[in-house]
Amino acid sequence: MHSFQFRVRYQETDQMGVVYHANYFVWFEMGRAELFRRSGFRYLDLEEAGFLTPVIKVNCNYLKPAFYDDLLSVETQLDKLTPVRLEFSYQIKRETTLLATGETVHAIIDNNGKPQNLKKKAPELWSQLQQV
Amino acid sequence: MHSFQFRVRYQETDQMGVVYHANYFVWFEMGRAELFRRSGFRYLDLEEAGFLTPVIKVNCNYLKPAFYDDLLSVETQLDKLTPVRLEFSYQIKRETTLLATGETVHAIIDNNGKPQNLKKKAPELWSQLQQV
Amino acid sequence: MHSFQFRVRYQETDQMGVVYHANYFVWFEMGRAELFRRSGFRYLDLEEAGFLTPVIKVNCNYLKPAFYDDLLSVETQLDKLTPVRLEFSYQIKRETTLLATGETVHAIIDNNGKPQNLKKKAPELWSQLQQV
Amino acid sequence: MHSFQFRVRYQETDQMGVVYHANYFVWFEMGRAELFRRSGFRYLDLEEAGFLTPVIKVNCNYLKPAFYDDLLSVETQLDKLTPVRLEFSYQIKRETTLLATGETVHAIIDNNGKPQNLKKKAPELWSQLQQV
Repeated sequence: MHSFQFRVRYQETDQMGVVYHANYFVWFEMGRAELFRRSGFRYLDLEEAGFLTPVIKVNCNYLKPAFYDDLLSVETQLDKLTPVRLEFSYQIKRETTLLATGETVHAIIDNNGKPQNLKKKAPELWSQLQQV
Repeated sequence: MHSFQFRVRYQETDQMGVVYHANYFVWFEMGRAELFRRSGFRYLDLEEAGFLTPVIKVNCNYLKPAFYDDLLSVETQLDKLTPVRLEFSYQIKRETTLLATGETVHAIIDNNGKPQNLKKKAPELWSQLQQV
Repeated sequence: MHSFQFRVRYQETDQMGVVYHANYFVWFEMGRAELFRRSGFRYLDLEEAGFLTPVIKVNCNYLKPAFYDDLLSVETQLDKLTPVRLEFSYQIKRETTLLATGETVHAIIDNNGKPQNLKKKAPELWSQLQQV
Repeated sequence: MHSFQFRVRYQETDQMGVVYHANYFVWFEMGRAELFRRSGFRYLDLEEAGFLTPVIKVNCNYLKPAFYDDLLSVETQLDKLTPVRLEFSYQIKRETTLLATGETVHAIIDNNGKPQNLKKKAPELWSQLQQV
């Protein structure tokens, strides 16, 4: 479980005075990027090696609102890794208060949209991912 | 089931060359607004009467990518209506091709965040919502 | 001067209860796309022919706020066209009320970031652009 | 001149493979918030005291593109402070490379949209702002 801190932007609020719900998925995306980075490689390395990981399924549960200027953390975990799929789960917290939980599922494809077996096509990246 | 057409904005794409996944929830929001409008009132009427409907749960399945300048439609359905909760489901289509499906669940609260029984507090709005 | 109508999304508001200022540039982008479309071609045609038109300079003046669910129009005009540059100006209106004015300047480059002379490299697109 | 570091989000890119231009204004907003914070108060303090500072004029010059995962900094300066107006300028940099420059002008109003003289209405906040 990796934790990354960030601050809520004014742009992320809506007229209800809280963060607009779709933005949590942008925070999850930051969580994935930082989880990879702390594991010694970058999500960008996957793309530069010709692999894309489009989102194929997401969900989020909103427990308490997030507000402008809040200092939040996203805790990210790689739940499942197969040669053709990645599954992550997330918690958004204000200090120890849980604000939201969510999950994202990603396919592994090449630049033409074809499913890729990362284990076979890029064994080095594959073994790095297994240490995340 | 109500259908509303819109065009994909350049801003909605990402460097994968497709629409960034979080934007589908913005399209769902448009779908809700237009579903209400075609039923003879506005989502805004709820807010002006002192009711907010924050999202408490969402999910989305991405079947095929959406591209810049695509003319898409969001089909929106009110699946469940209780005095304290609203549940919607959505389909995003390019002509007859299904690109994504999703669901959102909303609480009904007042400006102080207190759950509200819409049926008791605003019987007129409640009966309008039942005809959606 | 070409006019295109659209409705303000909830996502575009912020906690001030008005549209967040950066979104006007997204509306300008829609204005450009629709100006091209009404002139018989698509901005996408430029990209598919290998030309990109990145923004190199923008400004906006905000006269009156825009609100959620407002039905607005963006009026777009191609002010200047040279073989290497495009300049547009915009007005955002609620019915006849002027809410904002702005300008964007675009370079014409290829996929490698090299400036392109559209008149020489794509005379057909160039002559289409002159009729915008 | 205050400098604040941040990383480019995937959501901020577009299909040109660079950051979409409107996002620079979101970065400027972060720059303002952090400039205030380092000066010992929060932008939020202004709002909580009943003052809003809507943007009335902006511009930006884009010199070089910003890319996904770039570690950038926004350097923010309060250029002008009158009892009814705030003017800021910004530089976006990748290490020492200047990517963009911009300016924003803000009115000072109350929750009803009425212009406010901050010096008279909130002398304490006014004197804090003068030390930014």
